[in-house]
This record gives sequence, C-alpha cells and structure tokens, in this order.
Amino acid sequence: MFNYAYCVLFINVYSVVISILMVDRTTMTALNETHSPDLISWVDTANAPGTDFPIQNLPFAIFRRQESSEFFRGGVAIGDQIVDLLKAKETDLFGGLALSGIEACGGDSLNAFMALGKECWSALRLRLSQLLRNDISEEVKQLLAECLVPQDQVEFSLPCSIGDYTDFYTSIHHATTVGSLFRPDNPLLPNYKWVPIGYHGRASSIVVSGNDFARPSGQTKSADVEAPALGPCKRLDYELELGVYMGVGNDLGTPIDLDSAEDHAFGVSLLNDWSARDIQAWEYQPLGPFLSKNFISSVSPWIVTMEALAPFRANWTRDAEDPQPLAYLDSDSLRDAGAIDIKLEVYLETEQMREASSPAVQLAESNFIQSYWTLSQMIAHHTVTGCNLRTGDFLGTGTQSGASEGETGSMLELSSGGKKSFSLPNGEQRTFLADGDKVILKGWCSNSSARRIGFGEVSGTVIP
Amino acid sequence: MFNYAYCVLFINVYSVVISILMVDRTTMTALNETHSPDLISWVDTANAPGTDFPIQNLPFAIFRRQESSEFFRGGVAIGDQIVDLLKAKETDLFGGLALSGIEACGGDSLNAFMALGKECWSALRLRLSQLLRNDISEEVKQLLAECLVPQDQVEFSLPCSIGDYTDFYTSIHHATTVGSLFRPDNPLLPNYKWVPIGYHGRASSIVVSGNDFARPSGQTKSADVEAPALGPCKRLDYELELGVYMGVGNDLGTPIDLDSAEDHAFGVSLLNDWSARDIQAWEYQPLGPFLSKNFISSVSPWIVTMEALAPFRANWTRDAEDPQPLAYLDSDSLRDAGAIDIKLEVYLETEQMREASSPAVQLAESNFIQSYWTLSQMIAHHTVTGCNLRTGDFLGTGTQSGASEGETGSMLELSSGGKKSFSLPNGEQRTFLADGDKVILKGWCSNSSARRIGFGEVSGTVIP
Repeated sequence: MFNYAYCVLFINVYSVVISILMVDRTTMTALNETHSPDLISWVDTANAPGTDFPIQNLPFAIFRRQESSEFFRGGVAIGDQIVDLLKAKETDLFGGLALSGIEACGGDSLNAFMALGKECWSALRLRLSQLLRNDISEEVKQLLAECLVPQDQVEFSLPCSIGDYTDFYTSIHHATTVGSLFRPDNPLLPNYKWVPIGYHGRASSIVVSGNDFARPSGQTKSADVEAPALGPCKRLDYELELGVYMGVGNDLGTPIDLDSAEDHAFGVSLLNDWSARDIQAWEYQPLGPFLSKNFISSVSPWIVTMEALAPFRANWTRDAEDPQPLAYLDSDSLRDAGAIDIKLEVYLETEQMREASSPAVQLAESNFIQSYWTLSQMIAHHTVTGCNLRTGDFLGTGTQSGASEGETGSMLELSSGGKKSFSLPNGEQRTFLADGDKVILKGWCSNSSARRIGFGEVSGTVIP
Repeated sequence: MFNYAYCVLFINVYSVVISILMVDRTTMTALNETHSPDLISWVDTANAPGTDFPIQNLPFAIFRRQESSEFFRGGVAIGDQIVDLLKAKETDLFGGLALSGIEACGGDSLNAFMALGKECWSALRLRLSQLLRNDISEEVKQLLAECLVPQDQVEFSLPCSIGDYTDFYTSIHHATTVGSLFRPDNPLLPNYKWVPIGYHGRASSIVVSGNDFARPSGQTKSADVEAPALGPCKRLDYELELGVYMGVGNDLGTPIDLDSAEDHAFGVSLLNDWSARDIQAWEYQPLGPFLSKNFISSVSPWIVTMEALAPFRANWTRDAEDPQPLAYLDSDSLRDAGAIDIKLEVYLETEQMREASSPAVQLAESNFIQSYWTLSQMIAHHTVTGCNLRTGDFLGTGTQSGASEGETGSMLELSSGGKKSFSLPNGEQRTFLADGDKVILKGWCSNSSARRIGFGEVSGTVIP
C-alpha cells in the first residue's frame, strides 16, 4: 500500500502544465509528466547537459556486471548508471501495472515485458521517472541507489530475442544515389514512391554493440575475369540505420492498420547493417541481398521507447508532385505527427587514429525526419497481406542518407560506388573499410521545448 | 540395466549383411540395421506396401490428441500410429544416448532434441527401431502399444521453433523457365551456375499442414494503369519445395565446410511456399520478394531424418559443359552421394471436385535428384561468410521443377506466366489458384534395394 500512496503524492504540476501546452497534439504524440524538460534526477550525471540518458529518456537494455557469473537481466539507463530491474523489483516500490512490468524484466531478454503492451510499458516508465526525481524521499533514494550499476562496469547482450528481422529502404536519397550507380538514367525504380520497399534479413547474426568481427569471405567476380572466386570481401561497408522493436504482435491473417501501428512498437535503437558490396553485386540478382548482409548486423544496447520519442514527433509530408500514398498508408494522424526528428551520426576510428590517440572522425550526419516512409507505414505495409509480426521482431529503416553532401549513410555513397577514394583528416584514404577500422553510429533527439535524449551508440571493429 | 541388456540381444544379423552390401558407400551414406528392407514391425499398418511410415522411416513430429487439453509433445510415426515420446519415456525401455534423446522430445518443440547431434538422433532412432520390430518380446509390445496414438486422432504443430528461414533457388529448370518469362533472350542470370542463390524468407508465417488461409491482399499494378492499387491477390500460386531443418548450429564467424555440412542437418520435410505473383512482380525490385511470400508458408508435420534418407543417396554430377563448383562447394563425397532421390508430387482439389466427391488431380511430379545444388552446398554456401545457423533454422530448396513437361513445381510455370490457362480433368480451367482450391504436396523415396519411405503430405486451402 505504501507505494500506491507514494504515487499519488507525486502526480504533480508538470502534467497539468504539459497538457495545457500540448492540447493540439494528437494521441500519437501525447506527452505526459515524464517528458517535462524541468524534471531533475537525484542521479547527478543524468542532469549533465550532453547526457544521452536524462530522466526524460529511460531506455531499456539487458546487461550484467562485467566478468560476473550473474544472469543477464533488464536495466534502465539513468545518466551514467543503470537501474538493475531485477534488484529494483525487490524494493517494494512498484505496484499495479508497473509491478507487472518490472517483474517481466528480470530475465535475460525483454520479450516478456515487450509483450505486455503500451499501458504496462508506460506505467513502469512513469514509476521509474517518479522514483528517480530529485524530490523523492531520501529513503527511496537510498533503496534505489543500491540498485544502480555504473554503465562502464557492465556488459550488454541483445535486448531481446529477435524472431524475424526485416530491413526496409526508406531513404529516397540513399535509394536514388545507389540506384544512380547502377542505372544512371533511371536511378529510382517505378515502385519506390508507392511501396515501402523491404526484404527479410538475417536474425541469427544480429549482435549487440562492441562485437568486433572478422572481414567476411565470399564469392565475388570482377568484370575483367570470366569466373568468380572465393576470397575476403574487398568492399566492406557500414549502413547507418535505425531499427524498431515490435512489442505486441498481430495474428497471422490480421493486418495492422496505420493508425494503430505504433501501439505495436516498443521502441527504437541504432542499427549498423554491415554490407559486403562486392559479394552483394555478384549474388543479389534476382532474389536480393543474402550473404552480403548476413555475416553480422550490430545494434545499440538501448531501446529508446516510443513514449520517450513523443516530444520529437513531427509532421509528415509528401511532396505535391510525388504520388500520395494509397489509403492504407495514409491518415490524418500520420500527416500530423508520423515523422520523428532523430539526428544520426557516423564516426570512423582507424587503427592509425587509435595509435595516435586521435579521436574518431565524423563521416556523416543525417536525420530520420527525411525518411520517405515512416515507422507506422513500414508496419502497416508489412502486415497488409496478413503477415504476422511477433514480439521481438526487428524492422530496420534502411540506410538513412539525407539530401545533402555530408549526409551519406554508407561508404558506397561516399566513394561513388568505390570509384573514388576520400581523405580522412589525418591523410588516410578510404573507399571502403580497412582492417582495424571501427565504425561508431550515434543518434539523439533535441528541440527547443524538450530535454535532449540520446540512443547511446553502436560500434564494431573490422578484424583482419 | 534391463534395457541395455536388451539392446545387445538385438544387434542382429541385419547390420552385418548391410555392411557387406554397402562397403563402397562413403560415411555420408552409411547404412545401419535400421535401414534393412527386411525389418517388419508389430504395428501391422507399418508393413502395408504403400505406407509412408514403415519401420525404416521413423520421422519426428510434434502433436497432441485432437481437442484435448494435453500439452504438445514429440512423436514418431509408425504405420498409421504415432509413438507418444513423452509417454514412451516412462516405459524404462530407453537408456544411454537414446534416453537423453527421448527426454529432449517431451516438450512442445523438437529443438532440444535437434540440438543434441547426430549420435543422439541415431541412438534414439535405433532404439525405437528395435522396440518396434516384430521379434521384440510381448512385454515390450504391450508397454509400447499403450504409447501409440492413431494419426487420424491428433493435431500437429510446427515440429520446432524456427529461428531463421532461408529459401534457395536450386532447380535450374525452375530458374530457367521463370527467367525466360521475364528475359526470353537471357533466361538464366550469369551467377546462377556459380552461386547457390538464396534469400531470407519469413519465419513467423510458417504453419503446419492443414492451416487454411485467406487470399492475401496487397499492392499490385497492372501494366495498363498508371497507379497501383490495394486489393486481393489475383495470381495466387503454390511452390513445390523441400526444406531442411538444422540440428546443430555453428558459431558466428565459423563457416561449415561442405563435407561436415550434413552432420548439422536434422532432417527434411515438404514445403509449400505459397506465392502472390502479382504482388511479387510489383514489389520485388531491387531487394527481392517480400510481401508476396510472407503471408504464409506451409510445412508437412513430419521431419524425415537425414539418417532415414541414407538408402536414397545418389551420385551428384555437374555437366561437363557447365562450370564446375568452386572448391568450397565441391568434394569427393559430394560427387559420390551428395544428391538424394526424393520423388515429389503436386495435387489439386477444387471445390467442384469436393462437391462431386472426386479425388484430387495430380498437377506435377518431380524429383529432388535433379536439383542443381545439394543440401550440403546450400549449408556450406550459407555459412561461408561466417553466417551462423541455429538449431531449428529452416532452409527451403526453392521450387523443384524438373526438365520435362509435367514436372513444373508452380502454376506460374504451368500457365506460362499466367498467359494461358490449362484444363483440369473435370473441365475446370486454371491459370492461378481459385478460392476453395486445396493444394497437396507429397514426397517419397524408393529404390530396388530399400523399403519405400514417405514424407506424408502438406496441404492448405485458399479461403475467399
């Protein structure tokens, strides 16, 4: 009973202020007290200006203490710390739906929690927000402080068991640039502006950030020889993507309509869909990329919830000269707030840079707001035939290149299909990735009315 | 101790005879006493000439009694019966590896058993073979008879939890015919004879035989209109395939070499990879089929083990005028016995036929022995980049069309891309599937020196 009484005390002025400010927002972007930019945490590092993990974020991951024999368990980021949800459950500070939620976070994947649905996700997030605010009692702070683990002392695993992984192709800028390399006269295929193009990817080889990997070998064929050969990939690339984790699935044969699509989505993370361009060029016709993409895909440890992204929703528009979407891919709420303003960045750290203790260099920055198709359109399209999505299924957005130079989400674009190399600030040249290269993707959201939140990062290094 | 003593008694003359007959076979096709065509079971229906499930087969499935509240559990087919492995485990007739195996078959998927590896699979299969022979004691017959359930009184589920589903394209006849519909001058792409072409399919929508399904809707575009539209698929098709279930996986980054590839494979089943050809035509470029294949795929309940298929292995050859495979896809044991002689059949039962109580009509027969690429080549190629396969992963062979007329594994081929309809014996016309059509795939193996074994069937009906 203690914790319920506590809850009531802290339903505070923020929610009133926000509901006045935001009356014209649709339910899709409904803000609540957890979004208030004025919230401050008793975990000091959560209040630092540049942190990815202020109290307004509260993303989920699966972790354990490094080199421990602990079981993996759920955690929520706050500043440079993680709330150990397995331990926090024991504090008796959670009740009702929040208790159901935290009880589902004790295992080695978040699937059980993700299957519980948005009311439960929201209840646990709200309760964690309340307990982490600086105006909570000292007694609570002490209880919860014992559940904190420094992020630099943990190892992460995949946040959930991923059933199927689907990769889309939602950046028209990426599709156009890549298309122009193969078809200068006709860069964009006729279906692109009608169909959120996607294909099935490989789930087994998705790994969490920090998993380095050997340069893959595969079958490739140069234009100047008659026969292909097996050998190490010479055109190894990264792809700057976001991925959405499905929370609640749908039954086979029952499509998800556009306006309820995001109710099924749990949250978003960063995705590097490493690609072997020379293997891809030789294998991909007629059935699409296969081995060129299945050797590894890396995700960030943290899932930023759809709810945490609410303050960064934006209008979605389609140019008047472009075909407008078919009815199943269009709605008022899509137009109102279907897009999300997520800044994305690619960094490269070469072996020379590490030896010289130089920082990684930025190769590109982009923004998911430029995506031609939204998350809800991806979900509605994916299920329109009756295809079922399941808890833990993962949908990649495809490479998020922007309209401008400096916004290219892959080396294939940076090097014009490998035709010209580009220079790094230390004088090194690249067309594709070299051995020892570490690629780091970052993402974050900010605007004038909300507290900045971040996605952390996903990184991986190419081993010879 | 009782059961071990029992085992020793029944290591009988068959194994000696067979080892003399088969000395020139490689280990890949090693036969053992379970393969002897002379074995007879005390389950009478297993001795009927046409049965799919003689004592030489012993395929695995997951089942429960119809309309019961039982948990699903593992079973092995014998004649028209199933050995309930959950119940059989309690008989104390199993020991050693066979006991480890049967203990892993008590749950609602075979994954735990499939992960144990070929020695364990073989030990359980041998023990079941011994216990089901007609020369076993009356006491054993009585004990095991209580574990039998008639197949017509059960419902099946998927035999295992499928992680990733990959579909290959191994029939050069299918690839050539389909290619010629799109590119009359250049039907086969240059990579086909070098690369076992495959792509990632959808695992979530794989269902077991008997699951009927609604005609899917999707986006299609006719050549004579400017804009696509959403509507029911007008070119619904089946695909005659086999699928192989992976038993023991490989670590990410560690390819499986050709000669050990089949040690990782647990067994084979029938697969109907239903396809929406009009959705496919509009969506598939540049990343391959997606919604056109993800609405449903049907598998037969039974997994016929690789061991049961050993008597039907055949030489694998590559025409001298064709390029020979690269080294990672070629070996002596592949040449010796890489192919498998599996007869395949497609039947169609229309609503009119059902109303007239007419039997289903055969649309095609084919044989997996004609496949351009073998199961071991599929596995070796899939993992050459380091891609990891996991227990329960499923690899489709692609549509198994043969060289001759009457061997076409899809309606797309039967109707020349939908350009001409064909007649059924009752006068009905088809170009693609009509509502109410039921498609039934069957498969079986036979030769002069072995007992015929079958795969059962996979069926599904299109609901309007």
